[in-house]
Amino acid sequence: MRQIWCASARVTRMLEVETALAHATAEAGMIPVSAASAIEAACASGVASPESVLADGWNAGTPVIVLLELVRKALPAEHAPHLHFGATTQDIVDTAAILQLRDALDALSRSLAGIADALAAAIERHGADWVVGRTLLQPALPIRLAWRLACWLEPVVELVEHIERARATLPVQLGGPVGDLSSFRGDGERVVHAFAKRLGLGAPAIPWHADRGPIVACVALAVRAGSVAEKIATDLLLLSQREIAEVELPVGGSSSMPHKRNAIGAVRAVAAARACRGVASSVIDAPAHELERAAGSWHAEWFAVPLVFHTAGAAVEATNACLTNAVFDARRASDNLGGAPAPNAADADRLVARVVERYRKLREGARS
Amino acid sequence: MRQIWCASARVTRMLEVETALAHATAEAGMIPVSAASAIEAACASGVASPESVLADGWNAGTPVIVLLELVRKALPAEHAPHLHFGATTQDIVDTAAILQLRDALDALSRSLAGIADALAAAIERHGADWVVGRTLLQPALPIRLAWRLACWLEPVVELVEHIERARATLPVQLGGPVGDLSSFRGDGERVVHAFAKRLGLGAPAIPWHADRGPIVACVALAVRAGSVAEKIATDLLLLSQREIAEVELPVGGSSSMPHKRNAIGAVRAVAAARACRGVASSVIDAPAHELERAAGSWHAEWFAVPLVFHTAGAAVEATNACLTNAVFDARRASDNLGGAPAPNAADADRLVARVVERYRKLREGARS
Amino acid sequence: MRQIWCASARVTRMLEVETALAHATAEAGMIPVSAASAIEAACASGVASPESVLADGWNAGTPVIVLLELVRKALPAEHAPHLHFGATTQDIVDTAAILQLRDALDALSRSLAGIADALAAAIERHGADWVVGRTLLQPALPIRLAWRLACWLEPVVELVEHIERARATLPVQLGGPVGDLSSFRGDGERVVHAFAKRLGLGAPAIPWHADRGPIVACVALAVRAGSVAEKIATDLLLLSQREIAEVELPVGGSSSMPHKRNAIGAVRAVAAARACRGVASSVIDAPAHELERAAGSWHAEWFAVPLVFHTAGAAVEATNACLTNAVFDARRASDNLGGAPAPNAADADRLVARVVERYRKLREGARS
Amino acid sequence: MRQIWCASARVTRMLEVETALAHATAEAGMIPVSAASAIEAACASGVASPESVLADGWNAGTPVIVLLELVRKALPAEHAPHLHFGATTQDIVDTAAILQLRDALDALSRSLAGIADALAAAIERHGADWVVGRTLLQPALPIRLAWRLACWLEPVVELVEHIERARATLPVQLGGPVGDLSSFRGDGERVVHAFAKRLGLGAPAIPWHADRGPIVACVALAVRAGSVAEKIATDLLLLSQREIAEVELPVGGSSSMPHKRNAIGAVRAVAAARACRGVASSVIDAPAHELERAAGSWHAEWFAVPLVFHTAGAAVEATNACLTNAVFDARRASDNLGGAPAPNAADADRLVARVVERYRKLREGARS
Repeated sequence: MRQIWCASARVTRMLEVETALAHATAEAGMIPVSAASAIEAACASGVASPESVLADGWNAGTPVIVLLELVRKALPAEHAPHLHFGATTQDIVDTAAILQLRDALDALSRSLAGIADALAAAIERHGADWVVGRTLLQPALPIRLAWRLACWLEPVVELVEHIERARATLPVQLGGPVGDLSSFRGDGERVVHAFAKRLGLGAPAIPWHADRGPIVACVALAVRAGSVAEKIATDLLLLSQREIAEVELPVGGSSSMPHKRNAIGAVRAVAAARACRGVASSVIDAPAHELERAAGSWHAEWFAVPLVFHTAGAAVEATNACLTNAVFDARRASDNLGGAPAPNAADADRLVARVVERYRKLREGARS
Repeated sequence: MRQIWCASARVTRMLEVETALAHATAEAGMIPVSAASAIEAACASGVASPESVLADGWNAGTPVIVLLELVRKALPAEHAPHLHFGATTQDIVDTAAILQLRDALDALSRSLAGIADALAAAIERHGADWVVGRTLLQPALPIRLAWRLACWLEPVVELVEHIERARATLPVQLGGPVGDLSSFRGDGERVVHAFAKRLGLGAPAIPWHADRGPIVACVALAVRAGSVAEKIATDLLLLSQREIAEVELPVGGSSSMPHKRNAIGAVRAVAAARACRGVASSVIDAPAHELERAAGSWHAEWFAVPLVFHTAGAAVEATNACLTNAVFDARRASDNLGGAPAPNAADADRLVARVVERYRKLREGARS
Repeated sequence: MRQIWCASARVTRMLEVETALAHATAEAGMIPVSAASAIEAACASGVASPESVLADGWNAGTPVIVLLELVRKALPAEHAPHLHFGATTQDIVDTAAILQLRDALDALSRSLAGIADALAAAIERHGADWVVGRTLLQPALPIRLAWRLACWLEPVVELVEHIERARATLPVQLGGPVGDLSSFRGDGERVVHAFAKRLGLGAPAIPWHADRGPIVACVALAVRAGSVAEKIATDLLLLSQREIAEVELPVGGSSSMPHKRNAIGAVRAVAAARACRGVASSVIDAPAHELERAAGSWHAEWFAVPLVFHTAGAAVEATNACLTNAVFDARRASDNLGGAPAPNAADADRLVARVVERYRKLREGARS
Repeated sequence: MRQIWCASARVTRMLEVETALAHATAEAGMIPVSAASAIEAACASGVASPESVLADGWNAGTPVIVLLELVRKALPAEHAPHLHFGATTQDIVDTAAILQLRDALDALSRSLAGIADALAAAIERHGADWVVGRTLLQPALPIRLAWRLACWLEPVVELVEHIERARATLPVQLGGPVGDLSSFRGDGERVVHAFAKRLGLGAPAIPWHADRGPIVACVALAVRAGSVAEKIATDLLLLSQREIAEVELPVGGSSSMPHKRNAIGAVRAVAAARACRGVASSVIDAPAHELERAAGSWHAEWFAVPLVFHTAGAAVEATNACLTNAVFDARRASDNLGGAPAPNAADADRLVARVVERYRKLREGARS
């Protein structure tokens, strides 16, 4: 996540977007093909200090003016007017963000797959174990440990499916100054499709300068990833309490108590998921974006969206680390059951097998 | 929305759920068919005071025990043991909530269709008008008024599509005391499918007692409805400022200034949407639901979910009322343009037509 | 809380505010003293359907116009022009809300005192018991049970102190149509002070029509009350887990498991506190109130503020009920200690005694 | 804010805290005075890579173990056992955070004073100007421009007063492993007071390991600062709309429209304030911190608290920059009044003068 969202990646993505725009407008005959090639070359050479592009851009209210000045210096004078043809800052910033979001969703998906692998392995290993089901934090009735693990796994599988669907339809942003494509003089749709095709993205039904549906959807997936990770981490923490001890978690030390065993991975997952939801609320709960471009709510996304994915990624990674090294203690679980008779597990076993099978297929599909 | 979420509707839904459960368990041979019929009859007679069932239920931590006592009184003694067979409180409460959510999503969808109708009509009427596009609250370039309206319409259409998809796959909740279906002794899947079929709902991959995916998804749709309504209302408020005056909104009076014109509908929409997001955050940002059933986060939903839909519904209705009676002032819009030359609108016109067409098809599909 | 925030109380408070305004303007010679008396009489007779005043008022964007019409009907015609002299809707609505907030803060404070009483009693009873201190959900070192209870008590005491301070300085709202007191023609400060004095409230440095400091401060106190209650309830839930069992909580039953013991009071407290924070965020996180009166954010308060106090009150009451009937199990606590040697408790004992003493003084101050 | 919250400052603050602890325990005779001096020297030499201390610390669940290892290397072996005497990680991390919060509150206060200066200057310059008061975004009645400015100023003044009060009573955290001071063997209070005195902080009534009152209070002040700044920025944006134009704001350019004037300062203020509230909610709305130390909610603060102050600081600075260079246009304001007669401004003028006077005194108090 750090690499995906760093200043260098952000600026590189903006340069890729300008390059794709140059080629798309060249295809539509709006700028010379030679200009597009020159723009690609100028963009490919990058900038010396991406951090200062973003810092100056924040103060200027747009990183694109700053960036274009740098690109123009690397561009033969005759091609300079063809740079950024028809576009506005938001087209570049939003499309670059979408490219970063695609990478970030992929990274989340991979991390979630790690959790799913660990759960599938644990289900296989502990398929027949019984543990006390616990409701409202009190013992209820015996369940298969595999059942509990499948209840953790199913939302992970569903989320990976959601992420893959969302990732496949991420839209470019391209509408020009007021979003209506008029800067492309009647041939805007063709430009949008060429632009989208070059970037491997979709073309939206309509530019979304002031309707943040695509951003909100991505942020919601990250929040969900954090929450799914937090659910597992919370349950692991509860089950690892000394008096319950049905699972042993990898631990860190204490600065004051040599005997103390702190399940740091699970704790970090909980912390990161909570931070993620807080940051996300400034995107999801944003007041309406005004008219054709918001005065503030849009700019708040520049700050919030990267942090949402950093924290979501941290939560998933931490749960992954914790879960992969968790040791389920069948004997202790059995003690806690206190001889309660095992119920009929036929349904549970079938459903568990089906969830695992669904994950296997998803995993194979991803590999092939 | 008031009718959908009132105490009477809630209790009626719980009784319908108990009835469906009785028939489903009878079909699977777990209880006598005659018991199912008797349970249906007892449930159909309703309860005298649904308010007190819910109030007592809140204090008892479950409305179901209270409700079952009342049903048992109306049930011949020999059938009493067959009531609520295999189920736990959460199965009844959650499935009843899903039935209410289905109604609430339908109501939201109908209200949103009202907004879409008003927008489609306005687009038809004002297809060729020009207005100043405004970014960061400042005039930018001329756009078609129809373009702005289509940018409001597109998210409404997409949301209605989402709601219809979500509504079609709402899942029952049925898993028994700890969610693993063991109370149905190996034949649980059959019961779940019969139960779901009777209620016209889907069967989930796995019971979701402690993974609130389906509830969070419904709440997110309501929040989105509020936000989509707020976007339109906010823009209307901004455009109706006296010095801009590109739209005239239906107004209420002031208790102190006879000349004052307050665009109350738009104001109510903004207020309700904001309240909606606040309440929703207690569901969407809930900490993890612990183990097999949460000690608190689940119960918070009982309070929050109805309010989320009340406020979302209020926001959509208020925008609807405001928009339906809004008068767009072409002359004033033209004055504000100050003679700026009209750009090429070919792309805009095409995209506007396509959004309207997409809505028309959706509307016809809904009617047929 | 129900009584404080019901429609009838709200309308009664608005009538009291109109009455106080009448007397204050009469004192300043702006309206005849006889008009003030007549207005008081008309207001004292109340209205037939407070619910419909509020419902109509929501649709009209102000409950005050509706209410004034009803009062005018009960008022001799010659006095009618003197009603609501110099004021605007927001003056009446906000000042009535402040009166309700004063009652609500008092109610919260009384409920919190119940928690503090229970804690002080438990500290006295269990002063010398040892329990395992638990950090990051794992046993750490022995502590006095009294220490843990004092750590719950101290924030309650501090909060009661805060509430009492806040309650003593609640300000009226009175500024007229645009808040600048100009409707009182140069004598506004005198009116504000007379108005405040009659209502037992403070006079603000400046009207706060568009700066919600006083409302945000009250809401923050309610949120804090919910959080303080939730902290105790959460710890009780954790300590009452069967395998830990250091406390036994009053329980409700399960609709499916006769043996199940659900600590409903603590669960309700957690649920209500979470709902409270969600609702409160629509006030605390509101976007800026625009210019001289907000178009939406103010109206969102009408919905949110009562719910914030309902839920905060529910959380405190539920913790109170749970705590008052909690039984601390010294033997089980001792078992969990496993013979760990008791540390030096001199500091802990002193600090516990001081917290209890501080609470005693506060309590006596309140009684005297 | 960047300097206050950077890794280097954080580690330096932790080392200062260890130094103060060493001297405080030496004063109480718990460690040799020579050890305290040696610890001070070792801490004063700092660490090579504060970033890696924090990164490793996040993974280890505590930065203190990592840090102490480095300090021990710089410390003669005989003094090593005296380092960190009686303390736990949370004592060091929380007290260091309080020192950073003190600096951050001071920085916020200074920035807010900049806003107040600009407002006081504008009030002086525009004392007699009239503008249209605007409620619900519609013109209402004439007000003094000075009145509107005083309504912006008063919350700034009040907030600066609150910050100064809060800053003066910030408490240390010192309780040892489970917070009960037992590691100081009966002399803990003395250590706490010496420790607090050395750091210029207060001694809390009781350690607050699991009651985050002091942190929540500081975060709430930062949120309030963001909101106060956002209010001014929002109003400036609204007043600077081309058709209203009562204020001209410093502007940035557009990457697509040479004529476009974007009020970037105000936009940044709005964006930063919204981001601030989002991040803050993960502290303010945190679920209860469990028992003697939270498993996650505490660690979420490490991430959130610095960001809360970064964004609050950014909002205040941006409003400051915007306001200082704003030009109020008396002629345009007069046009918008359209000849409406001026009301009696005697009360307004008095209240404005009093707010300004209150600020002057506060400012002089700060200087002296």
